[in-house]
Amino acid sequence: MEPTEDPRVRRTRADVLRTALDVLIDEGRDAVTHPHLAHASGYSRATLYKHWPTRADLVRGAFTRLADAEHHTPTGDLRSDLIAELTMFRLGMQRHRLDRALAVLADLAASMPELAELRDHLVVEGEQVLRSLLAQVLTGPELEAAALMLSGAVLHSALMHGRLPDDAVITAAVDLVLRAAGTGSPG
Amino acid sequence: MEPTEDPRVRRTRADVLRTALDVLIDEGRDAVTHPHLAHASGYSRATLYKHWPTRADLVRGAFTRLADAEHHTPTGDLRSDLIAELTMFRLGMQRHRLDRALAVLADLAASMPELAELRDHLVVEGEQVLRSLLAQVLTGPELEAAALMLSGAVLHSALMHGRLPDDAVITAAVDLVLRAAGTGSPG
Repeated sequence: MEPTEDPRVRRTRADVLRTALDVLIDEGRDAVTHPHLAHASGYSRATLYKHWPTRADLVRGAFTRLADAEHHTPTGDLRSDLIAELTMFRLGMQRHRLDRALAVLADLAASMPELAELRDHLVVEGEQVLRSLLAQVLTGPELEAAALMLSGAVLHSALMHGRLPDDAVITAAVDLVLRAAGTGSPG
Repeated sequence: MEPTEDPRVRRTRADVLRTALDVLIDEGRDAVTHPHLAHASGYSRATLYKHWPTRADLVRGAFTRLADAEHHTPTGDLRSDLIAELTMFRLGMQRHRLDRALAVLADLAASMPELAELRDHLVVEGEQVLRSLLAQVLTGPELEAAALMLSGAVLHSALMHGRLPDDAVITAAVDLVLRAAGTGSPG
């Protein structure tokens, strides 16, 4: 991860870690082994052991790929921006099975402190746009509650209901928060 | 599970499944084996194989213990009732590590259809009080959104932030929803 890292090395690392994340999601953590990932990614076992000496390094590395999640670029219309950001979160779940990755990460973070640190870093990064939008109209515990509620609505639907919230539900969630903040249209 | 089930058999099943849920949460799914649970629960392997022929049966059985979650009995004061019900959800996470169990369940349900069915059953049961309270003041997509947001705020905080929401955040979440519904005190 040095700034002078060779582009070929960077590509190798990216290839292997993307494969590791896919394997983690599709086959579970037990499938994240050096031999299996060497086979699946097309690199040698020696290369894998050199970059990631332990299986824990591979698992941690896989989750760092989640930091590349896309975000909505705010336009200035708060309601549209909030809806677009939540829709982007949902899109990550559809396209990159972010919901599966987050369930595995939450599970592993409870027993591996170094993964808890990584999770905290990813969550701060992941919620940044949403929280800065909400901070325009809310403060204190209500800002914290609104951020947890909007992210939580998408996560809870995916993990506990096994389905993603539709457009009507995402819009309703944003409208409830804005109406409570006194900046939405009346219900 | 026949209605005429012997009380001793029922106790045996309850003992083993409670142990299975503890092992699942503390040591992970790989530790849920007949020999390990026989040792941990103090019953014979033969007894365990008789009641739960496969490891999948044991895992599924363990999660059925979650159906015993406690709920708040509504008093008629909507705000207090919503706060009390969310506080009860949080208490389940504190006392029974419900957050850990739900993370594992969400992860396993994605690959085991019979666990997805069990999860759906548990979620319907788990959200019943909350949804009936919210239905007093919301309908349609806003009711759905509010139910996902309030459950989701607690779940998201526990799984993604690694901490439970404090009283101020739970109260703020309920107040945002009630204010949006036009039945709360102005912010």
